[in-house]
Amino acid sequence: MLDETLAAIRPLDDEAIAAARALQGRLTKPMGSLGALEMLAVRLAGLAGTCPPPMPEPAAVAIFAGDHGVHDQGVTPWPQEVTAQMVANFVAGGAVVNAFARQAGASVTVVDVGVKTTLDPAEGLLIRKVRAGTRDLSIEPAMTREEALQAVEVGIRVAEDLVAGGARALLTGDMGIANTTPSAALIAAFTHADPAAVTGLGTGIDSETHARKVAVVTSAVVGLQADDPIGVLAAVGGLEHAALTGFILRAAALRVPVILDGVIAASAALAAAALAPACVSAMVAGHRSAEPGATVALSYLELEPLVDLGLRLGEGTGAVLALPIVASAVRVLHEVATFDSAGVAHK
Amino acid sequence: MLDETLAAIRPLDDEAIAAARALQGRLTKPMGSLGALEMLAVRLAGLAGTCPPPMPEPAAVAIFAGDHGVHDQGVTPWPQEVTAQMVANFVAGGAVVNAFARQAGASVTVVDVGVKTTLDPAEGLLIRKVRAGTRDLSIEPAMTREEALQAVEVGIRVAEDLVAGGARALLTGDMGIANTTPSAALIAAFTHADPAAVTGLGTGIDSETHARKVAVVTSAVVGLQADDPIGVLAAVGGLEHAALTGFILRAAALRVPVILDGVIAASAALAAAALAPACVSAMVAGHRSAEPGATVALSYLELEPLVDLGLRLGEGTGAVLALPIVASAVRVLHEVATFDSAGVAHK
Repeated sequence: MLDETLAAIRPLDDEAIAAARALQGRLTKPMGSLGALEMLAVRLAGLAGTCPPPMPEPAAVAIFAGDHGVHDQGVTPWPQEVTAQMVANFVAGGAVVNAFARQAGASVTVVDVGVKTTLDPAEGLLIRKVRAGTRDLSIEPAMTREEALQAVEVGIRVAEDLVAGGARALLTGDMGIANTTPSAALIAAFTHADPAAVTGLGTGIDSETHARKVAVVTSAVVGLQADDPIGVLAAVGGLEHAALTGFILRAAALRVPVILDGVIAASAALAAAALAPACVSAMVAGHRSAEPGATVALSYLELEPLVDLGLRLGEGTGAVLALPIVASAVRVLHEVATFDSAGVAHK
Repeated sequence: MLDETLAAIRPLDDEAIAAARALQGRLTKPMGSLGALEMLAVRLAGLAGTCPPPMPEPAAVAIFAGDHGVHDQGVTPWPQEVTAQMVANFVAGGAVVNAFARQAGASVTVVDVGVKTTLDPAEGLLIRKVRAGTRDLSIEPAMTREEALQAVEVGIRVAEDLVAGGARALLTGDMGIANTTPSAALIAAFTHADPAAVTGLGTGIDSETHARKVAVVTSAVVGLQADDPIGVLAAVGGLEHAALTGFILRAAALRVPVILDGVIAASAALAAAALAPACVSAMVAGHRSAEPGATVALSYLELEPLVDLGLRLGEGTGAVLALPIVASAVRVLHEVATFDSAGVAHK
């Protein structure tokens, strides 16, 4: 299923891009006056292969949840059971991402791809557990290659099902106590950045914990081969990172925009780009997370984030905040009058 | 009516601020993890005097339209009749601000406070013309004090009526070919910034036109007294700037947030702040316009914009893009579960 997904990813459609660019110039606004939104809408036309591109509605957030063996190394002050407790909070609709999604009109699907606790079935929760948390990446590979591939396929299937169910935009979400540590390792491995430069304070840690986290990331990335993305994911990734990689790839294969949340999504996006460089065209960087690794990853992918407000929560919150901006950019191509049709004089 | 409005503007409510701050700490997210959105929601609680503050819905955009005598000086390549043509485009729902407002669920009201052309009545258009365009500010005062005050009162009444009609957030919009020139003059006058540093390229001008515009602004601000805000508005403002000043002041008096669009709104906000410094607490900077004067004005007001995407269109577009972000920030205080209620462990 991964091979089929990779084979389906195509470059942007030049004709649709040219049509969208020309349309931008005929609409009743000075050319370029919508700044970054103009190129975004043009790119989404190229992705869809049609101008105007479909509105990114309905939109679906998928929150991939997993636990991390590296939690044992004291890289976070939060207890591991918070992953499962927050999954329950998502399913009950009580988390920030739920509030944001109600505001933006997006659905929320929670996917247990590797939570340590056994979760009770619930509406809105997909149990797709590959294993009950990763192994400790500071001691051994976090996953086998087979497990990493299984998690990637979970993400592929979730994207496939959401789009089959009508979604026209996919948004990345994640939950996993300690998951900024594997994210930093993935970013260091794929971009060759200094581990200290991509390892941040996560949801809030002291300098001693931070030093421990940097040491873990530094030793974990030694010897990793960036040209073997599945190998890198298996060695230092999380199950949610692998699932997000598949989710992003399938969105690209389906020519549906995928709005990235923060540092976890950005690290998975690097893995996806290593597997299929053309998939970057389907990515929209929702926001600039306060985590330094997010900015390193987005720069590497040459993506500019839409929102930059110092968020560092994860869950998909930054992606959902960006959704109305993406929708607004696309809506312009659908609804704005041209100079001719509105009888407005040109300069 | 201005005096009554100024007298009604009060500082933020400390008790509501303390309650909102405490609530932020109990919700299921690491403290501070929503970045700028946490303080924004706290401030809006202080503005409303209650925690949580009301949702900023329904929201209403008011687009104040006027023409400018300084157009004669060749400060823009756009013909003056575009102001009236764009008013017709707004009323027909064909402009970018209309598309953005439909996306965000905001209403749009267009107010003719000084368009040169006589406009036909239309649904959604309020004819409140104080005069048919300002005088040429490079030759004489743009308005008399009386005219400036009348325009301020137009803005006050529009805000009053929109809130009486149910609006819980007011968004500034504007239309007026050449109106970045009076905006630059207002910003230079109120902040004492160098005119060259606050005079930008508007909707797109060449360097020769820009030099002419800087010269006009430089000579216009000589001798203005920043401690006489109505005098400054009359000398170098536009009718829409004066109306926006009243609109912002009335929003503050009614304790309703007012989301500022770009450089025109920011220049009017300086006039409002000069009349009643406490009104700044009601302002939310929607976005950072590409016009340099906008950043100078927002820095002077100590406001950080929510969106920064290189927009330079006006109409209210940047304010409307920010509306879902403001609503999301407030929604958190209404809907997110606490650690206790959700059974989530603390770090």
